[in-house]
Amino acid sequence: MINVLKLNKGAERRIRAGHHWVYSNEIDNSFAPLKEVQPGSVINIVDAQGKNLGSFMVNPNALICGRLVSRKADRQLSSSLLKNRLKQALAIREQCFDQPCYRWVFGDSDGLSGLVIDRFFDILTVQVSTAGMEAQLDVILEHVIRLVQPKGVLLKNDGKMRAVEGLDSYVRVAYGEVPDLVELVENGTKFLAPLMTGQKTGWFYDHRPNRALAASYAKGKTVLDVFSYLGGWGLTAANAGAEQVTCVDASALALEGVLESAALNNLQGKVETAHGDAFEVLAQFQKEKRRFDIVIVDPPAFITRRKDIAAGERAYQKLNDAAMKLVSHGGILVSASCSMHLESDRLRDMIRASAIKLERHAMILSEGYQGADHPVLPAVPETRYIKSIFAQISPSL
Amino acid sequence: MINVLKLNKGAERRIRAGHHWVYSNEIDNSFAPLKEVQPGSVINIVDAQGKNLGSFMVNPNALICGRLVSRKADRQLSSSLLKNRLKQALAIREQCFDQPCYRWVFGDSDGLSGLVIDRFFDILTVQVSTAGMEAQLDVILEHVIRLVQPKGVLLKNDGKMRAVEGLDSYVRVAYGEVPDLVELVENGTKFLAPLMTGQKTGWFYDHRPNRALAASYAKGKTVLDVFSYLGGWGLTAANAGAEQVTCVDASALALEGVLESAALNNLQGKVETAHGDAFEVLAQFQKEKRRFDIVIVDPPAFITRRKDIAAGERAYQKLNDAAMKLVSHGGILVSASCSMHLESDRLRDMIRASAIKLERHAMILSEGYQGADHPVLPAVPETRYIKSIFAQISPSL
Repeated sequence: MINVLKLNKGAERRIRAGHHWVYSNEIDNSFAPLKEVQPGSVINIVDAQGKNLGSFMVNPNALICGRLVSRKADRQLSSSLLKNRLKQALAIREQCFDQPCYRWVFGDSDGLSGLVIDRFFDILTVQVSTAGMEAQLDVILEHVIRLVQPKGVLLKNDGKMRAVEGLDSYVRVAYGEVPDLVELVENGTKFLAPLMTGQKTGWFYDHRPNRALAASYAKGKTVLDVFSYLGGWGLTAANAGAEQVTCVDASALALEGVLESAALNNLQGKVETAHGDAFEVLAQFQKEKRRFDIVIVDPPAFITRRKDIAAGERAYQKLNDAAMKLVSHGGILVSASCSMHLESDRLRDMIRASAIKLERHAMILSEGYQGADHPVLPAVPETRYIKSIFAQISPSL
Repeated sequence: MINVLKLNKGAERRIRAGHHWVYSNEIDNSFAPLKEVQPGSVINIVDAQGKNLGSFMVNPNALICGRLVSRKADRQLSSSLLKNRLKQALAIREQCFDQPCYRWVFGDSDGLSGLVIDRFFDILTVQVSTAGMEAQLDVILEHVIRLVQPKGVLLKNDGKMRAVEGLDSYVRVAYGEVPDLVELVENGTKFLAPLMTGQKTGWFYDHRPNRALAASYAKGKTVLDVFSYLGGWGLTAANAGAEQVTCVDASALALEGVLESAALNNLQGKVETAHGDAFEVLAQFQKEKRRFDIVIVDPPAFITRRKDIAAGERAYQKLNDAAMKLVSHGGILVSASCSMHLESDRLRDMIRASAIKLERHAMILSEGYQGADHPVLPAVPETRYIKSIFAQISPSL
């Protein structure tokens, strides 16, 4: 049985600089063949000189074949390690948020690579994406249940990465009961999220601070929320005093959710929905010369792989062009992105380019970051993906 | 008299892409010699083909010899143009802030290159840094007084850029009366700022949102505010419920100001000061094994010119190393920078490097931006300079 892997010469640099991942082409197979390691086992990895790099979850079938468990050798994903990391992750969320609605565990950032847990008061969704974590699932669930006494835990194990790790895809209730619609509170606004049928874990807490910032500009204003999903941006703005909010989404089910959550906050009269492709709806509004004081575009990731960057950037540019056209004079464009591969500088440059094209003066009032429940590891750029730009748009000087 | 300048071929690109500045080496002197233009006059600039680029304030003595007034030709810094831009700038500040304490005008971003106005309720400081603005100073003051009826206006015309533009250096009361200490409110905390004798315009509103964010973590915590100046970060944290705040600064006068402002907010018992060089005080605290739940470092710009980048980055790294050592387990390091030449990516990488050196796990909870009263032009990177990183620091995994 293999209990230590060696890296090729030089391949240790990224790990020593703080990164958590080892790629399969970095392994020196002549020392010990990667393919003979049991998927999901935790073993030591050393550099070409044999010096310790730490303990890693290893899966020979994945491109990211090693994921840091500890900088120390001979560590396992033991019950006490898992418990401590879950508790630490919980402590920082409890410090940051008034109510138990947040991403409790954000994978690598919390030292729990391959594990994501979202909390909606006493309902949890758990997502596992690595063989190493899957092997510890029972222990994890035990601790999770003991730590926060949830009423229900949903295993949302249908992510794309699972196939890569040789794991099957399933969604099932692992504990207690999980209702179809689960209530959550974000920035003081209530939402109903469909955990089983919704996108990803059912809700996106990652833009929370940016939704609050957008809402801070919304009093008495008209707001367009494009790619609204359940209305995270739009309803927060409505609750902050927006006069009228229009939510646009291609999913009729999501827009039903918008209206349900609007009712929950007594905001029915202020919220309308427009069903359709975002680009088509924006073009239609432009044809009708409709203008909004605040236009928010928060599209799904247009760039999911590095090779999509060029096409994805064109799509972001097209979207920002279309959105900026609809901003009334002196109004605000909120341009959001959840593509890890789209750099902040590039998004800022798109606002510049749209403004030049449309002969506007764009003035950035703020840029937003992902919520504190999605912490970023400075050594692991893959953990940083949320961007948002708040630009005031007026006629060219 | 020269009333139009021509650019060398290709030099129009940056302007067409949205930038506001023309450099003296971009002028085609064979068409019309730059040096014959009257400093401070507003004239047209065209590209090598003779096509309009707009109206620019021109000063042949400055490296930045042209500053955009309008994308249209034949515009002057007329009374109505100045009034409109002052009003627009005021409107967005009034939308963003509850109280009239803010940077009212932020130069190029507000279409008023060379003009900065800070507002402290009914006291204003005005800074002029270009010959073009200086020529319109009386008109500007007239509008400013009419728009907000201040009790006093201080001309703080002692900036370094004035000599470059051939302007003399002076500080004088231009209108009404200006007390030695002026009260302001930021994030709900009161401060007294010494406008005449203080640093720059006497107060730095630019980190306002970041001070609020730091304070949001402060309840019940111990806080170290390094390079505190008047205690902008520390007192905001104290007011948000920090248990104990220590402000460090090399200026005894600034620390007196900290204690005066502390008293103004009834925070005397919670705030102590440490006088001395920041690096020496940090080293002393390390020797004494003092630890703080939150350590804030907001140094003066270590990098003011491009050629200082290497030395400046070493200073930032040294500072972040020293600061991170003093963060208690699970505490937060707030690393701020006001150097335009320090990129966000570089500051993030310094947190990474400090963490590796000290064997810590650094997790970024947020990154902050400059306040909305310091808006950024996406086409003019020089307008973007404030950075702040909020990192939780715990033992290495």
